[in-house]
Amino acid sequence: MNDPRHADALHTPQASAAPVVRDLASLLDALHASAAQRDLEGGHAAQEKQWIADAGLLTLAVPREFGGLGARWPDIYETVRKIAQVDSALAHLLGFTCLQVVSVNVWGNPEQRARFLSGTVENRWWWGNAVNPLDTRLIATASGDGGYLLDGQKGFCSGTRGSQMMTVSAQDPVTGKPVFGVLPTTREGITVHEDWNPIGQRQTDSGSVSFVRVKLEPHEVMERPDTPHASLRTLISQLVLTNLFVGIAQGALDEARAYVTQHGKAWIYSGVDKATDDPYLIQRFGEMRLQAVSAEALATRAAWLLDDAWQRGAALSPETRAQVALATSEAKIVAHRAALDVSEQLFDACGARATHAPLALDRFWRNARVHTLHDPLDYRVRDVGRYALTGTLPEVSLYT
Amino acid sequence: MNDPRHADALHTPQASAAPVVRDLASLLDALHASAAQRDLEGGHAAQEKQWIADAGLLTLAVPREFGGLGARWPDIYETVRKIAQVDSALAHLLGFTCLQVVSVNVWGNPEQRARFLSGTVENRWWWGNAVNPLDTRLIATASGDGGYLLDGQKGFCSGTRGSQMMTVSAQDPVTGKPVFGVLPTTREGITVHEDWNPIGQRQTDSGSVSFVRVKLEPHEVMERPDTPHASLRTLISQLVLTNLFVGIAQGALDEARAYVTQHGKAWIYSGVDKATDDPYLIQRFGEMRLQAVSAEALATRAAWLLDDAWQRGAALSPETRAQVALATSEAKIVAHRAALDVSEQLFDACGARATHAPLALDRFWRNARVHTLHDPLDYRVRDVGRYALTGTLPEVSLYT
Amino acid sequence: MNDPRHADALHTPQASAAPVVRDLASLLDALHASAAQRDLEGGHAAQEKQWIADAGLLTLAVPREFGGLGARWPDIYETVRKIAQVDSALAHLLGFTCLQVVSVNVWGNPEQRARFLSGTVENRWWWGNAVNPLDTRLIATASGDGGYLLDGQKGFCSGTRGSQMMTVSAQDPVTGKPVFGVLPTTREGITVHEDWNPIGQRQTDSGSVSFVRVKLEPHEVMERPDTPHASLRTLISQLVLTNLFVGIAQGALDEARAYVTQHGKAWIYSGVDKATDDPYLIQRFGEMRLQAVSAEALATRAAWLLDDAWQRGAALSPETRAQVALATSEAKIVAHRAALDVSEQLFDACGARATHAPLALDRFWRNARVHTLHDPLDYRVRDVGRYALTGTLPEVSLYT
Amino acid sequence: MNDPRHADALHTPQASAAPVVRDLASLLDALHASAAQRDLEGGHAAQEKQWIADAGLLTLAVPREFGGLGARWPDIYETVRKIAQVDSALAHLLGFTCLQVVSVNVWGNPEQRARFLSGTVENRWWWGNAVNPLDTRLIATASGDGGYLLDGQKGFCSGTRGSQMMTVSAQDPVTGKPVFGVLPTTREGITVHEDWNPIGQRQTDSGSVSFVRVKLEPHEVMERPDTPHASLRTLISQLVLTNLFVGIAQGALDEARAYVTQHGKAWIYSGVDKATDDPYLIQRFGEMRLQAVSAEALATRAAWLLDDAWQRGAALSPETRAQVALATSEAKIVAHRAALDVSEQLFDACGARATHAPLALDRFWRNARVHTLHDPLDYRVRDVGRYALTGTLPEVSLYT
Repeated sequence: MNDPRHADALHTPQASAAPVVRDLASLLDALHASAAQRDLEGGHAAQEKQWIADAGLLTLAVPREFGGLGARWPDIYETVRKIAQVDSALAHLLGFTCLQVVSVNVWGNPEQRARFLSGTVENRWWWGNAVNPLDTRLIATASGDGGYLLDGQKGFCSGTRGSQMMTVSAQDPVTGKPVFGVLPTTREGITVHEDWNPIGQRQTDSGSVSFVRVKLEPHEVMERPDTPHASLRTLISQLVLTNLFVGIAQGALDEARAYVTQHGKAWIYSGVDKATDDPYLIQRFGEMRLQAVSAEALATRAAWLLDDAWQRGAALSPETRAQVALATSEAKIVAHRAALDVSEQLFDACGARATHAPLALDRFWRNARVHTLHDPLDYRVRDVGRYALTGTLPEVSLYT
Repeated sequence: MNDPRHADALHTPQASAAPVVRDLASLLDALHASAAQRDLEGGHAAQEKQWIADAGLLTLAVPREFGGLGARWPDIYETVRKIAQVDSALAHLLGFTCLQVVSVNVWGNPEQRARFLSGTVENRWWWGNAVNPLDTRLIATASGDGGYLLDGQKGFCSGTRGSQMMTVSAQDPVTGKPVFGVLPTTREGITVHEDWNPIGQRQTDSGSVSFVRVKLEPHEVMERPDTPHASLRTLISQLVLTNLFVGIAQGALDEARAYVTQHGKAWIYSGVDKATDDPYLIQRFGEMRLQAVSAEALATRAAWLLDDAWQRGAALSPETRAQVALATSEAKIVAHRAALDVSEQLFDACGARATHAPLALDRFWRNARVHTLHDPLDYRVRDVGRYALTGTLPEVSLYT
Repeated sequence: MNDPRHADALHTPQASAAPVVRDLASLLDALHASAAQRDLEGGHAAQEKQWIADAGLLTLAVPREFGGLGARWPDIYETVRKIAQVDSALAHLLGFTCLQVVSVNVWGNPEQRARFLSGTVENRWWWGNAVNPLDTRLIATASGDGGYLLDGQKGFCSGTRGSQMMTVSAQDPVTGKPVFGVLPTTREGITVHEDWNPIGQRQTDSGSVSFVRVKLEPHEVMERPDTPHASLRTLISQLVLTNLFVGIAQGALDEARAYVTQHGKAWIYSGVDKATDDPYLIQRFGEMRLQAVSAEALATRAAWLLDDAWQRGAALSPETRAQVALATSEAKIVAHRAALDVSEQLFDACGARATHAPLALDRFWRNARVHTLHDPLDYRVRDVGRYALTGTLPEVSLYT
Repeated sequence: MNDPRHADALHTPQASAAPVVRDLASLLDALHASAAQRDLEGGHAAQEKQWIADAGLLTLAVPREFGGLGARWPDIYETVRKIAQVDSALAHLLGFTCLQVVSVNVWGNPEQRARFLSGTVENRWWWGNAVNPLDTRLIATASGDGGYLLDGQKGFCSGTRGSQMMTVSAQDPVTGKPVFGVLPTTREGITVHEDWNPIGQRQTDSGSVSFVRVKLEPHEVMERPDTPHASLRTLISQLVLTNLFVGIAQGALDEARAYVTQHGKAWIYSGVDKATDDPYLIQRFGEMRLQAVSAEALATRAAWLLDDAWQRGAALSPETRAQVALATSEAKIVAHRAALDVSEQLFDACGARATHAPLALDRFWRNARVHTLHDPLDYRVRDVGRYALTGTLPEVSLYT
């Protein structure tokens, strides 16, 4: 996907992501080399996560004042997308580390931001989470000193296995309110379970986590502000997913191209000598690319809208925030469909021999399929439709 | 899929498949119970193949004069489809045993037909094959007595592992012509390799077979007649595949319904209490069913046309044969798309928890994906398009 | 659409529609010759309706005991479909005359059936209607002799202009119940307005009708029985529409083929000499035909189910009736989409010069578009979805 | 379509299109008020073209050095799109006047540019054309003074009727080369025929023009440079079409929303009180909008790429030019489909009464249908597919 606008963005002084991009090419090659094998094995990609950390990508979303790359959203998402082209599970991990960094950035007080954001730069922390809002089994009991004791479980804790730090949300049964905070993943009483076994996105370290009398220190407790700007966090999260989908579509297209140009044979009744001259195969690649570029264009549009909104800070109005939510849903729907469709058509393009299991070329579809189910597509379409029919913008919710 | 026409067909005296159907329900339950597990393991389903043999299904295509069920094509395909709803790999094995039986029926002389078709009834033979026409590595050397010595390899020998009998095609380098025949799978010099490892249809026993100085006896050599009726064999094969696709679509829909009614929860922002009241979920099931019934209707239409053509025997004209080929391609295209789309939407219907790997609910998509790649969809559409634009009917080919 | 099964059906003794079919070819040619011009002009096709009457088609649905053709439903619908291929407005008129005949057949007592069905045969009556159930402006005042005086209006009275007889429904404000009956269209007090001016289906004579003190004689009043068999009338009506859609799709495909083979030029960058060799044009025709044959197969399936149900008479169970309703909705949805899509793609096939207004090649799309809006597609999909998800069959309603 | 990025673009100093935009709202209202009526009548929209001229829009593409607005391409296209939302025929006229202005800009020598571009500003010229490259019937005979005499015909001369100036291309039979030039439409010997009668885009003044011994003066003859920059003219033309399609999709969506909110009634079996609460209607609007925003996003992406390329002038490389061509084809394909689909779904959203002919709500579909046939969609998909499969960028051609 050669889009000069992205390239330009990465070369602007304020982005300064250039060194990252230089390293990115070899990182992508290295991840690609083992992606099929790691998909079959599942489990934890310790080595590969180290490479990502070594490439300096963990500080993409850390503001420059704390020593991070402070990249703009379109640049962060482009990086996520490029990694997703070769490995959407590890791209998810990187995207969600950025998301937890943003959580600290919007929930933390000045002291907390300084401590945890600088810490992310200095220690190359991978961040996990235990904040799944639909899972209310984790209980926070006030410990009298401003801190809490955490007891219970959380499911779908993406990125927590192998992380150094994590965000957490729990219910305080006395106040009936949720408690937020950050703490080291290695703290006593925390057990990260190796129970993540899905059909795709197998290395996102998304198992469950249990807590037994885990201390959340007073300085680790954060207040979640109820502002449009803070609520951008949800949209940042949704655009991570969106860009994973775009990356999967692009990666499946790349893989199909590579396979056909290397192994493709002209169909016996096609009347052409080379697969690359087959008129119908060409058409199929055309349709695959059309889906990928549509998804990418909408993702880029949403990323710039997010970036504008993000930079407005406290001045961000609810309506402008809702416009970002709308654009995010539009991009996510189109990307959802593109990821599934392109990764399915990969096989029509490559033919029967591409179904050999060790190639794991079905991982694109399986990854897309697992990842596109966080919330139902139909209800995103409903949000878009409500706006189109009545002008009503999406409300702030757990997913928009 | 309650279609009274099928039911009627099965109750007609000439079909007399009723006893089979009585056993079929418990057979389907038994196959369904282990389908997910067997998909994960791959390999050979010896026990399940025994059950199918015990149900008497191996003689579906054996004429009554030889003691077989002599079922009509719509009934045979309905049986294949029903098994495919729960296990499309084993349905493939049954369909391809029927196909080899048909091969004997159209290629064999009276003596051969009597011997091998009665043998199928008496011994409950599973039939394999080594006839992949795109693989020309198997050499037949005339042994002077009217028989041949076979040396070389064949790939994609569906059903051969665990079979008792097999069909074979090989090249005679002296005459430059192909040699056809049947022989016991256990004959000395034949090795059936356990090298079938695809992403789906994992228990179709479709590995490669190697031959070292294997004797093909004179009475096992068959002449392949060049008549429209004999060339129906190709269409019979294509309609086996078509009905596997229809069965996969129907099976995925059944599985989705079962999952949603048992485990489905209303989406938090849906405004309804039960998943089964969700207007968008209802709509999705509607679209899934529309694809399944379209595919089934076209498959049934093609099966009746085939049945009519089949019964004409030597009187079958090339044009009527070509009409069956056209209807077969139309059905196969629609069924191809239905199988993929319904098995993908299964997950939109069931939600994120349905991606848990041990459920193997992705097997429908993987089975459909592997099986829809025998020949490129686009070239079937071309055949249909040529007829629609110029009135040219499909020619006899390896796939039509 | 060469489907042997239809041909077979028409040749069975009980159908005996053969003489009709012989005349049909020249009738179709005659209708086709003026279809574009009549589409542009709109208004009433008196001459063409006479030809249809002369061909003996008005008695298709009149039972043989009253001298009618007594054709089976699949044959009636095939005739409607063939006319719709060249002129879907006149096909609608014929289909709705059959529908009113059926109304007399199921609503009338023995004397009424004898009088009005024999009358249809003897006088070649075209039947109109004023029974639109959503329009409740027509009032029936009991006249004391068992008859009524009718006052008010009805809209969308398809076929009434130029008809000799009509069905009518009106509200009796005293009993609060609807009154049904039949009467001559020329009766004093009835005014048929020439106010039908839609973008398509321009010659269906579907304007409004006003009634001023119109006498409905006692022998013209009918009781509408509340039985599953009588409620088949709604499905008969829906299958008329369905087959109009199928005919439009087939007709658009025929027209596209004729245009391309006569006027088509190979695209300058196609690399082929003739349009009919263009790989992409071939593919487009393939996709168009696939839609047409899917729709036709489902329409045929529904017609046979209807025919089975119809012949059960009073023994028809609500569930079997509901199965017909389901199959009817399935066919109607697929045909709706096929009609729109094929008539739109006609232009991609034929190119820019085909948009010359006097050719009126857009009439297929406009006809499909007007006719597919009687009731919302989405609610038919809902009915199919409910069955697929929960097993609930469609209830009897105004449209199912 | 509220896209802040467009708004931003219009507020940048270099665009200074703000005054235009102020006038645009009332212009759009005025055009919308008569659009349905003018679609039915066809012919020439003299009054409305005057309003567009009065709004100052004819100089959008005239560089500032000649007194024009010198708007950037994304702004020009946004203006075209907004007009297309209410009247895609007049939007076409404006877009093609911009295109002829660009032709003068890239083909003219400094003197010619000064004369004709300043003239456009001073005289508010509408520009027509007689340059259809597929029509070679117009002959240029050298008149010895550096000028030519023109004799013959050109078809599809969009915008020529009612124009003051026009571009022309003709064949010189002596040199075998094409001759380009500009001249007043009113010059003696030119006859603009009123023979444009298509099913849509009825007021684009696209009839044929005949020439009898028409003098093309020496100072009116232009050399067509063979540079990547000059060849951008073709892409500028294609993006005019693309943005017309986007505008049609947006306009159809606007019209559907307006109709439903004003006239929509809840379906009797929907269970909701208002049409705007209907879950399926909401979904339909969602899908319509998704297509419109995808098309708009790709059109905007292509417009910026064009703008970048345009500003490079003589430094523009063939490869960068080809990247613009690729992005243009991608946008055009998606917009083509969006325009057709949204304008068809408008009726599913609005229901049967929306088919009343005087409303002319089918004009969106008819306009889209006529306008999407300049060149076959399939060959654009082929260009995209070739790039996706082999990396080959589109070559310069008559359409890319």
